[in-house]
Amino acid sequence: MVAPRVYEAMAKPVVGHLDPFFFEINQEIRTGLQQVFGTANPFTMAISATGSGGMEASITNFVEPGSKLLVFAGGFFADRMVEMGKRQEAEVVRVDKPWGQTVTDAEATEAILREKPHVVAFVHGETSTGVSTPGHAICKAAKEVDALTIADCVTSLGTMPINLDATGIDIAYSCTQKGMSCPPGLSPITCSPRALERLMARKSAQRTWYFDLKMLADYYEGSRRYHHTAPISMFYALREGIALIMEEGVEARFARHKTNAAALTAGFEAMGLEMLVPAADRMWALHTPKVPAGVNDLDVRKKLMDNHSIEIQGGFGQLAGQVFRIGLMGEGSQAANVDLLLGALREAI
Amino acid sequence: MVAPRVYEAMAKPVVGHLDPFFFEINQEIRTGLQQVFGTANPFTMAISATGSGGMEASITNFVEPGSKLLVFAGGFFADRMVEMGKRQEAEVVRVDKPWGQTVTDAEATEAILREKPHVVAFVHGETSTGVSTPGHAICKAAKEVDALTIADCVTSLGTMPINLDATGIDIAYSCTQKGMSCPPGLSPITCSPRALERLMARKSAQRTWYFDLKMLADYYEGSRRYHHTAPISMFYALREGIALIMEEGVEARFARHKTNAAALTAGFEAMGLEMLVPAADRMWALHTPKVPAGVNDLDVRKKLMDNHSIEIQGGFGQLAGQVFRIGLMGEGSQAANVDLLLGALREAI
Repeated sequence: MVAPRVYEAMAKPVVGHLDPFFFEINQEIRTGLQQVFGTANPFTMAISATGSGGMEASITNFVEPGSKLLVFAGGFFADRMVEMGKRQEAEVVRVDKPWGQTVTDAEATEAILREKPHVVAFVHGETSTGVSTPGHAICKAAKEVDALTIADCVTSLGTMPINLDATGIDIAYSCTQKGMSCPPGLSPITCSPRALERLMARKSAQRTWYFDLKMLADYYEGSRRYHHTAPISMFYALREGIALIMEEGVEARFARHKTNAAALTAGFEAMGLEMLVPAADRMWALHTPKVPAGVNDLDVRKKLMDNHSIEIQGGFGQLAGQVFRIGLMGEGSQAANVDLLLGALREAI
Repeated sequence: MVAPRVYEAMAKPVVGHLDPFFFEINQEIRTGLQQVFGTANPFTMAISATGSGGMEASITNFVEPGSKLLVFAGGFFADRMVEMGKRQEAEVVRVDKPWGQTVTDAEATEAILREKPHVVAFVHGETSTGVSTPGHAICKAAKEVDALTIADCVTSLGTMPINLDATGIDIAYSCTQKGMSCPPGLSPITCSPRALERLMARKSAQRTWYFDLKMLADYYEGSRRYHHTAPISMFYALREGIALIMEEGVEARFARHKTNAAALTAGFEAMGLEMLVPAADRMWALHTPKVPAGVNDLDVRKKLMDNHSIEIQGGFGQLAGQVFRIGLMGEGSQAANVDLLLGALREAI
C-alpha cells in the first residue's frame, strides 16, 4: 500500500539530476534512512534500481573474486545471495537451515570461526519464510575473523528495528515498496566506515559500472560528479515516504507493526492455525501460518480475492502449498486490516 | 519536459510485479518500442534502471572477457562504453574522432575489417556533442566479420529514425527521459535474434545478475518467472509516453523534430552562430552552436535562466566553453520553443 501523499509527490515536475534541489532531496532521504536503519553511517543512500539491485551492489562491491563468502541460508533470498556470490567467482560456503528456521547463535559463531570468510551474508527479514535474523552473534563472530557482514533488509526496513550500528552490520540494503510504503524503484543502502575502507583498498577489478559504489559515493556525496541520471520521481516518492515515517516517529512505527503483528498472530492461533516460525524468530511485517491439513491454499487465496479483494501469497520453494504468506507492513499495518483479514480467512478456511 | 498525462499515469495505484495487468502494460510498451526503434525484434523491453543501466546490460551480456570490442569514439558516452568494455576485461580498441565529428564510412569499414572485433559499439546520438551516427557502414562491415553491433540511442530514440532492422543494428538501448518524454527510470533495450543466439551460446560466466538478459527474457516474455520487482510506476509512465507517441504517429513525431531542428539551426546561423557539427551529421534533438569569440558561455546561460527560465547546457570535456548544448526533444520540440530560445539567445549574446 502506497500513501496518497507519495503518489502526489511522485507526480511533481522533474528537475535535473545535477540540480541543487535534487541534492537537497537526496540529503533528506539519507538522513531519514539513517534513522530507519539505525545508523550514523555517512555512506547511506538510495541506489537507482530495485531491491535486487541493492543486493547486487552489495555483493559485487564487497565480495571479490577468489574471496570466501559465507551465507546463512534458509529461504529464497539467501539463495539469491549465494547465486550472486558465485557469479563474482567467490568461494561460497553456505550454512543451511530448513525454510522457516534461522541459525542459532552457537551455530553461527561456530561456522564463522571455522570458515574464516572474508564476507558473511544473511537475510535480516526473509520474505519467503517470515523469519527474522537480527544478526548479533553473526556480526560479533564476523568481527573476530575480520569479516564484513551484509544484511538483506528488504522486508525489515521500516517495519522493525534493525539497529545497524549496535548490531554491527557493515552493509545493508532494502527496497522502497515494502516497509517504506513507496512504489518499487530504488534500493536504500548503507555501508559502515569499515566497509568503505575495505572498498577503497580493493585491488581486484570491479566489473560493474552501474553499481560501482565508489563512483556512486562521488556522485551523491562527494564532488556531485555526474554518474548516471537518477530517477528523480522515485526520489520524490521516497522523500515523501520518509516524511510520513518521521511524522509518525520511527519508534512509534515499529511499535505499530509489533502490536498489529501480535494481534494477527494471536488471531491465527485462536482459529487453530499453527505458525511456521517460532515466536522469537518472527518478522513483524510478514506472517506465515501453516495451511491446515485438508485445506487447499489456492482455494483459500481465491476466496479471499473474490469475496474480499484481499491478496495474500502462498508459499513457494520448500514451502509450496504449506504456508500462507501474509504481509502487514507500512501503511497496511493497521488494526482494521488485522480484523478484516482474520474474519475473511476464518470464513475462507 | 514530461507531459501532464505521463505524470497522471505515474500516480496510478501500483499492482504486483506478477500481476497479469503488469504484463499487459509491458506488452504495450514492447510493441510501442518496436515501432520507435524500427524493429521487429521480439526481444524488446524496458530494463529496471536508467539509460546507463541499458549500456551496462548491453556491454556485460555481449562483450565477453578476452573478446575484442571496437568502439567508435568522439564523445563522453562513447568513452563510457570503452570504460565498461575494459571492466569486462575485453580487449578494447578505439577509433577516435575529435568531439563534434563522426567516423566516415570508409574509416569505419577499414577499421572493422582490420581489427575483426567480436563486438562493435557506437553512439547513435552523442549527447555530449550533438553528433548522430546512423551506422549503416558500421553494421555492414560488422556483419562481414561476424561482429555484433551495439548502438547507444539514449538521445535519438523517439526523436529521429533509428531504423534498427534496416540498418542492421543488433543491440540498442535508450532512456525514458529524453525522446520518450517520461521521467528517468527505465532503459528501453532491443536485441536482434542473431544477438540472442550469441547470448544463449555464451560460454563465459556472467557476473551480473541484475542485468542478466537471459533471466530478464524469462521474466518478461518467457515463463514470467519472478526475477526482480519491476518499478511499476515507471512502466505506467512509459506506457503513457508511448501512447502519446502513437497518437501523434511515429513518422509525424520524427518529422516534427526534423522541422524544428531545421528552424532552430537556421535561426542560429541567421544570428551568426556557427554549428559545431556538419549538417549531415546532426541530431534532431540536441544542437551545438559554437560560443562566439569573446562571449562567455556561463554568462549567456545565466542570462537565459534569470531572464527567461530557459536552461541550456554548456560543453564539457573537449568542448568545455566552446559550445552551447541545446535540447529540443520530445514534448519540448515545438515551434514556439524555437522562437522563444532564439529570441532569448539573441538578447543574451
